[in-house]
Amino acid sequence: MHTTVRTTVIEVGPRDGLQNEDRALPVDERIELIARSVDAGLTRIEAVSFVHPKRVPQMAGAEEVMAGVPRRAGVSYIGLVLNRRGLERALAAGVDEVNAVVVASDTFCMRNQGVTTARAMDAFDAVAAEARDAGVRCSVTIAASFGCPFEGETPPERVAEIARRAHAAGADEIALADTIGVGVPAQVRDLTRRARAAAPGTPLRFHFHNTRNTGYANALAAVDEGVTALDASTGGFGGCPFAPAATGNIATEDLLYALHRSGVTTGADMDAVAATGAWLGERLGKPAPALLGRAGGFG
Amino acid sequence: MHTTVRTTVIEVGPRDGLQNEDRALPVDERIELIARSVDAGLTRIEAVSFVHPKRVPQMAGAEEVMAGVPRRAGVSYIGLVLNRRGLERALAAGVDEVNAVVVASDTFCMRNQGVTTARAMDAFDAVAAEARDAGVRCSVTIAASFGCPFEGETPPERVAEIARRAHAAGADEIALADTIGVGVPAQVRDLTRRARAAAPGTPLRFHFHNTRNTGYANALAAVDEGVTALDASTGGFGGCPFAPAATGNIATEDLLYALHRSGVTTGADMDAVAATGAWLGERLGKPAPALLGRAGGFG
Repeated sequence: MHTTVRTTVIEVGPRDGLQNEDRALPVDERIELIARSVDAGLTRIEAVSFVHPKRVPQMAGAEEVMAGVPRRAGVSYIGLVLNRRGLERALAAGVDEVNAVVVASDTFCMRNQGVTTARAMDAFDAVAAEARDAGVRCSVTIAASFGCPFEGETPPERVAEIARRAHAAGADEIALADTIGVGVPAQVRDLTRRARAAAPGTPLRFHFHNTRNTGYANALAAVDEGVTALDASTGGFGGCPFAPAATGNIATEDLLYALHRSGVTTGADMDAVAATGAWLGERLGKPAPALLGRAGGFG
Repeated sequence: MHTTVRTTVIEVGPRDGLQNEDRALPVDERIELIARSVDAGLTRIEAVSFVHPKRVPQMAGAEEVMAGVPRRAGVSYIGLVLNRRGLERALAAGVDEVNAVVVASDTFCMRNQGVTTARAMDAFDAVAAEARDAGVRCSVTIAASFGCPFEGETPPERVAEIARRAHAAGADEIALADTIGVGVPAQVRDLTRRARAAAPGTPLRFHFHNTRNTGYANALAAVDEGVTALDASTGGFGGCPFAPAATGNIATEDLLYALHRSGVTTGADMDAVAATGAWLGERLGKPAPALLGRAGGFG
C-alpha cells in the first residue's frame, strides 16, 4: 500500500447511481445530493447526463441541476455525453468536465449507445476536439473493460487498443469500468499496465461495481498500482441493469473507510457521506447497500 | 496473484454462521447444511461448538450433529472448544480437528470466554497437549486480531506474541480472525509477516468478516501472501454481535468466485454453494448477504 498517496474519489451517485434506480428523484433532491457531497469534501462530482431524457428519464433536467449546484473553488462537475449534441448541451450548462463513454464490446456498445465500439471512438474524437477548443477537460470511460454481459470475457488487448485511440484523441483521463462487476484484482493489475503502455502519461481512473463482492478489492488493487482516481456512489446505489437483484457501484463511504484505514488520504468525510447514504436511501425508498452506515466506523 | 496456488476454503457456516443468527436451526437441518457443503466439494467444515449450550443455544446438540454427518475420505470436521471439558466432549463425539479460541484483547476475551488472554493461552496449552495425545489436529484462532470492539486497535505485537505462544504449545495451525470486520489488506500483509516470524513453519489461516466491505479484499491479500487456508460461511450468514444490523462472515460462494476468477483453485463448486446459500436463507427466514446468488456467475 502506498501510505503517502492521496486518492481522489469521484462521486458518481448523482449520475450512475440515480440513473439505474427505479425511482427518479426530482431536480431539487438531486441538487441536494450534490451539495451534500461537496460539503463532505468530495471535489469531483459526476453530476448530470446529457443523454436524451427519453432514453434515461431519471437524468432529465440536467440544465436545471447544473443551474442549482453550489459553485466552489476546487470543485469540478462532470457531465456525461455520448456525442457532440450532448457536448453542446454540457458546454451551455457550464460543466467543468465532460466524460464520454465507449463500450469495449460491440454488442453492448450497440445496446448502450446505438453504435459499434469503433463508431463510438469516432464520436469521441469529435467530442474531445471540440471540448479542447472550448477549454473543457474531457475524459473517456471504457465500459465493460472487465467483461460483457453479452460477449463474455473482454479481451484486454481490445481495452488497450481503445485506450491507445483515446490517448491519440487527446483524452485528459481514461477510466476503465467494470460495468457489470465481474472483475478481480489480477485483472485490475493487468489492465493498468496495458493501459499505461497504450496511453503513456494519460492519468487512469477506475470505476468498479460490487455486483459479486469484488469491487473494493479491485479498488484497493488499483491504488496499489498507483492509480489515484476512483469512482464511487454514495450509499452504493446504482444497481446493475443486467442483474436486477444485484447491488451496483461501490459505495463512497465504504471506499473511504478502506482507503483511510489503509493510510490513503482523500480529503473527504466518511461519516458525512454515510449520513448522506442513509438520507438517499429514504429518498429512494430502499436501504443503502453500503455497509458502513449499518456497522459504524472504527479507528 | 499466485495463479497456480490451491487454497482450502474452510466452511464455518454450521458454527460461526449459525451461532450468530437469531433463529436456531434444528439438528437435522444443521446436518443437511454440512452434507450439502461436503457434496459441494468443501473438505474442511467447522461443524459444531462444544461451548456450553446455555451460553450458545444455537449450538446445542453437537454430539447429535456429529453422529449424523456424512463420513468421507478427505473430509475433516472441526469442533470449536474453549477448554479441556469442551475438548473431551469433542473427542468423544469423533471430530477430526479441534479449534480453540484466544481473543487478542483482555476485555473481549473476558466477555467471550470469561478469562484474560493470558489465561486463555494457558487453557490452550492444556488443550493442545491433550489433543496431541489423542492424535487429533489442534488449531487456534486469535480472535480480534485486527481490532477490538472494546479496546479499539489491536497492537500487532500482541497478536504476534500470542502466535509465538501458540507455536510453542504445538498448534497445528494458527488462524488470524478479523472478528468485527475492521481490517484492510495492509494489515493482512503486516500480520502475516509478523505471525510467520513468531510461529515459523506453522501454517496460517485467516478468518474475515465483511462488516465494512473489506473482507474479500483481505482474503485476496492473504492469498497474495501465500496463505492457503481461508474461512468463509455459506450465504455470508453469521452477523456481527457488536453491530446488529451489519453482515458477518465473508460468503463462501463469493469467496470462491473471487478465487476462481483469480486463477486460484479450491476444488469446490461455487454454484452448488450459492444454491445452498439460498436454501439456508429460507431456513433462516432472511436473504443471504452473499451477492453471487443474486448476480449470477460469470466466465
